[in-house]
Amino acid sequence: MKTLGLIGLGQFGRLAAGILKDRFQVLASDPAPGAEDAARALGVGFGSLEAAAACDVVVVAVPVAAMREVFAAIAPHVKPGALVVDVGSVKVLPARWMAELLPAHADLVATHPLFGPQSVARDGLPGLRFVVCPIRGDRYERVAALGRELGLSVTITTPEEHDEEMAYVQALTHLIGRSLVNLGIPDERLATQSYQHLLELCGLIGADTFELFKAIQTQNPYAPKVVAAFVDEAKSLLEQVRAEGA
Amino acid sequence: MKTLGLIGLGQFGRLAAGILKDRFQVLASDPAPGAEDAARALGVGFGSLEAAAACDVVVVAVPVAAMREVFAAIAPHVKPGALVVDVGSVKVLPARWMAELLPAHADLVATHPLFGPQSVARDGLPGLRFVVCPIRGDRYERVAALGRELGLSVTITTPEEHDEEMAYVQALTHLIGRSLVNLGIPDERLATQSYQHLLELCGLIGADTFELFKAIQTQNPYAPKVVAAFVDEAKSLLEQVRAEGA
Repeated sequence: MKTLGLIGLGQFGRLAAGILKDRFQVLASDPAPGAEDAARALGVGFGSLEAAAACDVVVVAVPVAAMREVFAAIAPHVKPGALVVDVGSVKVLPARWMAELLPAHADLVATHPLFGPQSVARDGLPGLRFVVCPIRGDRYERVAALGRELGLSVTITTPEEHDEEMAYVQALTHLIGRSLVNLGIPDERLATQSYQHLLELCGLIGADTFELFKAIQTQNPYAPKVVAAFVDEAKSLLEQVRAEGA
Repeated sequence: MKTLGLIGLGQFGRLAAGILKDRFQVLASDPAPGAEDAARALGVGFGSLEAAAACDVVVVAVPVAAMREVFAAIAPHVKPGALVVDVGSVKVLPARWMAELLPAHADLVATHPLFGPQSVARDGLPGLRFVVCPIRGDRYERVAALGRELGLSVTITTPEEHDEEMAYVQALTHLIGRSLVNLGIPDERLATQSYQHLLELCGLIGADTFELFKAIQTQNPYAPKVVAAFVDEAKSLLEQVRAEGA
């Protein structure tokens, strides 16, 4: 059984540990208090960053804001022939950092699992989306195959195409949803189908942290243009209405 | 059988004629070319504005922008004991115009049927929303009772409460939907549930005219504040992200 170093045992790391522990000998590493207990509860090993970085497969499951630093820290320990995979929700920056910082003797695959523990707990893995971006070597095919074995709907694409789509799919939905949540839009008696869509968007996005919002807006190079175009369009429509009404 | 003068035989007027012709002797009036043929096809009478205005019940089904003028034109012909009803999608302005322009010897009810021919054709009347605002006299109870007999979900409220809710339910959804449509948001492979809500909002609002958009934004006194608050919130969130990111 191959060894898998899981760096980061946060919300997604724990989900990944549960999914991968039947297929790999998992060694998790995370300096956060409680992480070792969590690893024990999950039935996976726990160790130093160096030990996790020296596994056959290394999965980096830390926030994108911490990723560059983690790649730099693991780089000296990644062994020849290893495969390094990240699971960040943007792909251009992590892919660039991996290619720049990790040794040439390791294969690199950038991924984005478009799901979290809540959706898996509710519906199981089958049908959930999993994006795979080949960065170095051809082992992205193995990663995609594992995703398909797990029942995921796998899309193979480039970091650029991924982030460009996500500028709409994530940055725009989170801007609109968070603005509506902050506005405190009421659950009206007279709600129409259109309004119901806004209320449901609030329900999906309402509990997310500002940190996540900031990450989505700043770590995707395509996001600022798309969200600015939306705000400009809304302003321009209202100006047009005012001008014609006057 | 009481007579019902139906002023305006546009999209909603034709729907109303079909629904009401079994309960009233309907006399439609509309200067538009083809309106007389439409009345014949619907199996209702057709006549002058004066004749329609002199019926037992007068239903005004013209765009809100034309309503004030129509109330002024029918005022001299409305007979004692008549009931005048409008069906505009905002209520504060029509209610004010009716009270101001129509003779004190007529009862007045402002209504908003939250549906059109498409939704009726698709799902039938039962369960569709119908808002009734008492303006003068107690015959709003008769209007509400007729709505319920038709299977509609009836809400009795004031014009102010109606428009305040609609500032969210209509003005905000149409601003967001139209901005997204104009932006040409793509139907992405990686669409999430949140993004699906935006795509469906576009589908619901995409075909509406700019005239309707303008009406929704300008004829509801509560709308400008709500939509401006949304745009300000979005701008402020983006500024906050930029400031913290710098």
